[in-house]
Amino acid sequence: MTFTARLSHAAGVINPRLHKLLTPGEHFGPPKRLANAMQYAVLNGGKRFRPFLVLESARLFGVSAEQAQDTACALELVHSYSLIHDDLPAMDDDDMRRGQPTVHKAYDEAMAILAGDALLTLAFEVLGSPQCHPSAVVRSRLVLELAQAAGWAGMVGGQVLDLAEEKAEKVPRLGVIQRIQSMKTGALLEFACAAGPILGNAGEQAEGHLREYGQAIGLAYQISDDLLDLKGDAELVGKATRKDQAAGKATVIARIGLEKTLRLLDDLEAAAIEALKPFGDAAETLREAARFISRRER
Amino acid sequence: MTFTARLSHAAGVINPRLHKLLTPGEHFGPPKRLANAMQYAVLNGGKRFRPFLVLESARLFGVSAEQAQDTACALELVHSYSLIHDDLPAMDDDDMRRGQPTVHKAYDEAMAILAGDALLTLAFEVLGSPQCHPSAVVRSRLVLELAQAAGWAGMVGGQVLDLAEEKAEKVPRLGVIQRIQSMKTGALLEFACAAGPILGNAGEQAEGHLREYGQAIGLAYQISDDLLDLKGDAELVGKATRKDQAAGKATVIARIGLEKTLRLLDDLEAAAIEALKPFGDAAETLREAARFISRRER
Repeated sequence: MTFTARLSHAAGVINPRLHKLLTPGEHFGPPKRLANAMQYAVLNGGKRFRPFLVLESARLFGVSAEQAQDTACALELVHSYSLIHDDLPAMDDDDMRRGQPTVHKAYDEAMAILAGDALLTLAFEVLGSPQCHPSAVVRSRLVLELAQAAGWAGMVGGQVLDLAEEKAEKVPRLGVIQRIQSMKTGALLEFACAAGPILGNAGEQAEGHLREYGQAIGLAYQISDDLLDLKGDAELVGKATRKDQAAGKATVIARIGLEKTLRLLDDLEAAAIEALKPFGDAAETLREAARFISRRER
Repeated sequence: MTFTARLSHAAGVINPRLHKLLTPGEHFGPPKRLANAMQYAVLNGGKRFRPFLVLESARLFGVSAEQAQDTACALELVHSYSLIHDDLPAMDDDDMRRGQPTVHKAYDEAMAILAGDALLTLAFEVLGSPQCHPSAVVRSRLVLELAQAAGWAGMVGGQVLDLAEEKAEKVPRLGVIQRIQSMKTGALLEFACAAGPILGNAGEQAEGHLREYGQAIGLAYQISDDLLDLKGDAELVGKATRKDQAAGKATVIARIGLEKTLRLLDDLEAAAIEALKPFGDAAETLREAARFISRRER
């Protein structure tokens, strides 16, 4: 299967499972409006790139899609919550997301905050459930790793730094930009790639390789997102574009220019592919993913 | 030791540990301002009633304070995050909390949302860490239970229902009020009481008794909070009081009147004490806690 076939195959595995996880049980369930807002935010045609990475990195170590799907879903729930909160008026103040009104527009601000909170919490409920993986050691490891990736020294910390840089007068140094991006976007992508060896009990060395791969594609992903924004086609992206420049976002392109950015993207692609060397042909889909990320906007 | 001595003893155990957990490591830590906001929200002289319940319920089953403290801290982190988000302008819009400006007043709204998100995430990082408990089965169980108590069918769901009832024209039925309260406040208190038998591997029956106790004091706690609010002494409580009536909050008192409410409080106290019967003298402090809750505002 090619990368795009694998990607849509992953979405085909993940979407029904997300739907199930977001359908409350009969007895003493959550309020309907809350469950609706959570479903609205998650079941919206997302590409499921993070779940795809979980399934693919798991497959490398003989872990079936069925055994990896709940970890993949938990990660997607965390990603979805972060989008809801990032879109809030107090943050990026976005009205549209994937061509639909954002949650605080479709519902209200209180519901957007609470739906985000509930999705984040549900992610850990999913990882803590025996259904997720038969080994409690693995489950508890996944909880720890996802919490670290998503928390104060990871995604949330990156968002705090990002908001602070927006207010700053000048473009920060490249190292600062990359630190922000590796926290804000990279940490979850690294978790996605590390999840495979964790689920498969593959050991530290294998996990190290997958983390290297995850870090490289994480930085590449953010850069190609910024390139997308620069080329700006609102219809294509389904959200407001060219907003970065207007908001004074700290992007790599703003710091080192387009030409050097494209070279950096090549280097990151090479580093990602290099990290997969030990896994031979089995890692071909992940290699294709790295190529896709670094080339999607040229 | 009496109940109040035990309560302040618990705070003496928990506060230094919370301080430690909220102090970032040296390498690639979280942004300082974020860590400061999180500390500001948590290390503010709270009574640590939930951690107290964890330590006491653990002690019943021979679990030391040292072995129970991280679970107690995780719960307090979740409680603290919920207060930050509840105080936001889009929710209860409170400017003061425990005599101090709320987080969105002391910092800003974005930081309040993110500090709350980070505290919730940190709670699961703490529970997922091997330091929390040597058994991964116990850790993963604690993650599942806390997530269920705090999530869409628990605390967050209760807040959604509570906000909806505030907008409604008439006072809801007693059953509805109690369902909201048992979700919004009760679920975390029940978790606190169930944590002891979970940490001590005490089995289903013991856990059942502690849950019954937790449910009874959970409802009593909310009622006595409402009584406190009714008697309203802003200086004493350190936050705006008599707000419930103004906001049209669905309280038990508003539904069944003061006299019946006081009788209900007596029944809940009796039920809580009855649930502790199997544990004899060892449960005396928890009994005192039940008495304290139902009588603190008479």
